[in-house]
Amino acid sequence: MQKPFLQHINYPKDLRKLSIEDLPNLAKELREFIINVVATKEGHLGASLGVVELTIALHYVFNTPEDLLIWDVGHQAYGHKILTGRKAIFETNRQLGGISGFPKRDESAYDAFGVGHSSTSISAALGMAIASQLNGEDKHHIAVIGDASIASGMAFEGLNHAGVTDANLLVILNDNAIGIDPSVGALKQYLTNVKKGTNRRNNIIEALNIDYSGPINGHDISKIVSELERLKKIKGPKLLHVITTKGKGLKQAERDQVKYHAPGKFNAETGDLIPKPDVKQAPKYQDVFGHTIVELAKQNHKIIGITPAMPTGSSLKYMMEQIPDRAFDVGIAEQHAVTLAAGMATQGLVPFCNIYSTFLQRAYDQVIHDVALQKLPVIFCLDRAGLVGEDGATHHGVFDLAYLRCIPNLIIFAPRNEVELRNIMYTAQLGLEMPIAIRYPRGRGITLDWKQPFSKVELGKAIQLKKGKNLAILSIGSIAKNVSEAIEGLNVSHYDLRFVKPLDEALLHRVFKEYRTIITVEDGTIKGGVGSAILEFASEHNYKNTIKTLGIPDGFIEHGNVNELQRLVGLDVEGLRNVFTKHI
Amino acid sequence: MQKPFLQHINYPKDLRKLSIEDLPNLAKELREFIINVVATKEGHLGASLGVVELTIALHYVFNTPEDLLIWDVGHQAYGHKILTGRKAIFETNRQLGGISGFPKRDESAYDAFGVGHSSTSISAALGMAIASQLNGEDKHHIAVIGDASIASGMAFEGLNHAGVTDANLLVILNDNAIGIDPSVGALKQYLTNVKKGTNRRNNIIEALNIDYSGPINGHDISKIVSELERLKKIKGPKLLHVITTKGKGLKQAERDQVKYHAPGKFNAETGDLIPKPDVKQAPKYQDVFGHTIVELAKQNHKIIGITPAMPTGSSLKYMMEQIPDRAFDVGIAEQHAVTLAAGMATQGLVPFCNIYSTFLQRAYDQVIHDVALQKLPVIFCLDRAGLVGEDGATHHGVFDLAYLRCIPNLIIFAPRNEVELRNIMYTAQLGLEMPIAIRYPRGRGITLDWKQPFSKVELGKAIQLKKGKNLAILSIGSIAKNVSEAIEGLNVSHYDLRFVKPLDEALLHRVFKEYRTIITVEDGTIKGGVGSAILEFASEHNYKNTIKTLGIPDGFIEHGNVNELQRLVGLDVEGLRNVFTKHI
Repeated sequence: MQKPFLQHINYPKDLRKLSIEDLPNLAKELREFIINVVATKEGHLGASLGVVELTIALHYVFNTPEDLLIWDVGHQAYGHKILTGRKAIFETNRQLGGISGFPKRDESAYDAFGVGHSSTSISAALGMAIASQLNGEDKHHIAVIGDASIASGMAFEGLNHAGVTDANLLVILNDNAIGIDPSVGALKQYLTNVKKGTNRRNNIIEALNIDYSGPINGHDISKIVSELERLKKIKGPKLLHVITTKGKGLKQAERDQVKYHAPGKFNAETGDLIPKPDVKQAPKYQDVFGHTIVELAKQNHKIIGITPAMPTGSSLKYMMEQIPDRAFDVGIAEQHAVTLAAGMATQGLVPFCNIYSTFLQRAYDQVIHDVALQKLPVIFCLDRAGLVGEDGATHHGVFDLAYLRCIPNLIIFAPRNEVELRNIMYTAQLGLEMPIAIRYPRGRGITLDWKQPFSKVELGKAIQLKKGKNLAILSIGSIAKNVSEAIEGLNVSHYDLRFVKPLDEALLHRVFKEYRTIITVEDGTIKGGVGSAILEFASEHNYKNTIKTLGIPDGFIEHGNVNELQRLVGLDVEGLRNVFTKHI
Repeated sequence: MQKPFLQHINYPKDLRKLSIEDLPNLAKELREFIINVVATKEGHLGASLGVVELTIALHYVFNTPEDLLIWDVGHQAYGHKILTGRKAIFETNRQLGGISGFPKRDESAYDAFGVGHSSTSISAALGMAIASQLNGEDKHHIAVIGDASIASGMAFEGLNHAGVTDANLLVILNDNAIGIDPSVGALKQYLTNVKKGTNRRNNIIEALNIDYSGPINGHDISKIVSELERLKKIKGPKLLHVITTKGKGLKQAERDQVKYHAPGKFNAETGDLIPKPDVKQAPKYQDVFGHTIVELAKQNHKIIGITPAMPTGSSLKYMMEQIPDRAFDVGIAEQHAVTLAAGMATQGLVPFCNIYSTFLQRAYDQVIHDVALQKLPVIFCLDRAGLVGEDGATHHGVFDLAYLRCIPNLIIFAPRNEVELRNIMYTAQLGLEMPIAIRYPRGRGITLDWKQPFSKVELGKAIQLKKGKNLAILSIGSIAKNVSEAIEGLNVSHYDLRFVKPLDEALLHRVFKEYRTIITVEDGTIKGGVGSAILEFASEHNYKNTIKTLGIPDGFIEHGNVNELQRLVGLDVEGLRNVFTKHI
């Protein structure tokens, strides 16, 4: 087949010159374009394939960027990026200096709102729609939100407000029955009933005073165009229910939607994943968590696993498969996840609540108010802490040490390696008097032989990893690896603090007495992080040592691979070594 | 009338001996008891009066404390406290060392879950219900939640999960159409339609797969008892819709529900408020905000006011009355409030988003991800920062400086007095390149002549309040008042930092060069707060001065009046003076 359309389309204005009959062909080309690039450059695949027709229809019908279009989460916005001036640079997607994997205001006028975390689109679009009313502008404001995202509390808050306004808001519910993992919850069942036609009596959307239409087939482009044309003329808040298939157009992506959410490299023709070289590798931290909780839960029947919509990403799926009655995916509901865990803890259960560091920001109040204040021994496992790489600024888990450290009654631990993660999990489920947050990074660890017998971790105990004279380096968590490499051949001491809270004060007193200069290293924000904890300790005990704190500087860090980003902020081996040698 | 019932009831087991015919008389006594105590001791009145019958019925039908009863928010739990062992000490309510104004696990086995912030009860009760299933216990789990609280996203997340479980959960929707202020939003309208009988087609609760019954009259005690008896036998998640009147039984409280939410002292017989002595007082900070935003918004038509359910408490009500199209009460929806503001800011509006410091914890992610990351110039006004007094541990706004300080692109300012608050509001709406958080305390300021002409605040500029030799004291915000009094007659310097971020580095360099010892004072957590910012500055520039940081120690602070609590943590005048003189 010729490719007569996409090559001539750089912006939506080009697209709007096509006849409606040409759009299905364009959809075919756009789909191929996405598949070809993602097959080699990697990235999020399934979500964008599912909304190819919707994307074209939206830019065809609405006058973007004057009309404001917001993609919730943004995994599905690749087609949107390609049609809005970024076709030529799309292959730089998610790379350092390249375009972001998510819509981003800095990047394009067509990206009306930056996204990454879920369920923000309705609130943002409503804010814009109210602004247009007040500014006397006749614009359209469209939020495209998936069925997993709309089930999150924040989206409900947006709908609840929208329903009492006459703002010109169009919510498009992109219902594919899956987020990253299959959707869960009562709302998902409700939507399933709507699709089956078995629910006619109760319409949640109409009950919230929002005009409901659909469900329509999200791959029938002329149907979508005509429905959008109709809705364009209807004032006030309205919701269009569109049914799509995640991964649409690539058989394997349709069949294995979880794996093809972000499949890595694959054969663009066949869809086959390209196997990685079969080298023996250390495990992913998430799998250490996932396998260890199963191991522990088989012994300790009080153990519960909770994930807000990340069974695959957190590897809680192993427990969900093997011990389904004690492992819960609660959907994109971090607030609920935390307080649910708190409720369970009051009854003597031992909940492991696994939340990505960046998403725990969604449940900050619940950690303080429902867990820590009541000293309930919930075990938080914070995956994806520190720099996460290609997902970029919205997803780095760099604030956790600072925002958790000010909370009373909370133990904070960061394992240096897989064995430490296993042992702190083991220790925590033996019974603590208070909650604990265990934060560990994305990706693989460093220990091939990670499945060692459990041993108990002494609370608040740091350890010395290397003895030396000229300098004491205090690191926290897995960044210890870079420190270890950076000090090869240097006559310095290296300590792993392990506990951010409580600090090992006895050890710190020895360190402050023995070394003139102390350098702290963490992969979290310098402001308020572990370095600050050491400064506070020094101030409290009137130590006058020279203290240098290394960590993430006070700015949002963009996307790129973790090594590149570490270099950028000076936490790579070379950067660290430079600082260390300067202070010897 | 005799009072034959309440005096013999100390625990629910006593109550359960009564015949159902006696319960209305008990309700009458309980209501009088609450009125009599609150009339002189102050506290939350209306909510508890509204659920007297419900409270009695719940403890009558269910086997508390084995059956687990959770009061959402907890303003309405006075009757519960009186009937569960705390009648004799009820007059210590909210006082230092007395019982808490909210249910609290430490205080009583009948307080199944500590509350204070809204919308946590469903999640907590569901966690308990799942625990009972796993523990093989046949218990009941009841969450009593108001119509304002159930409209918050977190409650929806709980319902969405509950609907796909068979947990033995009873949600009682206490529908009085008001939180602290009248309820808002589409769900409120929906409930109104249900009550009127004009909505029969769409049942949101049933759509979420939860058994719905009601609405029933919440003041008909035998009706409630029989309905609860019926529901007790129904397994799985269920919701009972109960209609009550806030303030029930005290005419004025029924009529003016907002004022009688927490009316202060009043005449128990007539209900008349007892007027405070007519001394000329400095204004409340909230009123300075409320009047100033009106003043500014009349000039600057881009200004928007947003409150999540606190129009009275924040005094945004003045703007809502005078400029209703630009002032929004979005209900208990902090997450939505922040991202709505972000959306508005993208379109050139100037949103003032007023949220109590403690409740901004609910929107932490939105501040980072939707506002700061995008550098959107939202103006956050954080009321009730620092120690709030009688509301206690759940409500102190002491974490904000620590959790905000690590966020890039965010200006943080704390006014020392009313004039500073006005001037920073004036400055912010002139147009900043980034968001700003302005945090100020509960209660009255110090300036009678507060309504002075606006003057622009120079960004990042601290000021010296007093010159001296022996010591430099750096304070932030309104605690400057205590510092000023504490240093009377001492030869020390006092600076108001004003900006937590950006710090006035030029001034700090001068201070660090001029003074050997520096003491920081803040009414936020020592860990990670302003003191830590100064320690970080010193470390960065290699200053070896002695630095002492004063603030809230690392523990949850209980209830009591602000003066008492300041004394407890050493931030009262005498406590400060002791530290200062020791360091001279």
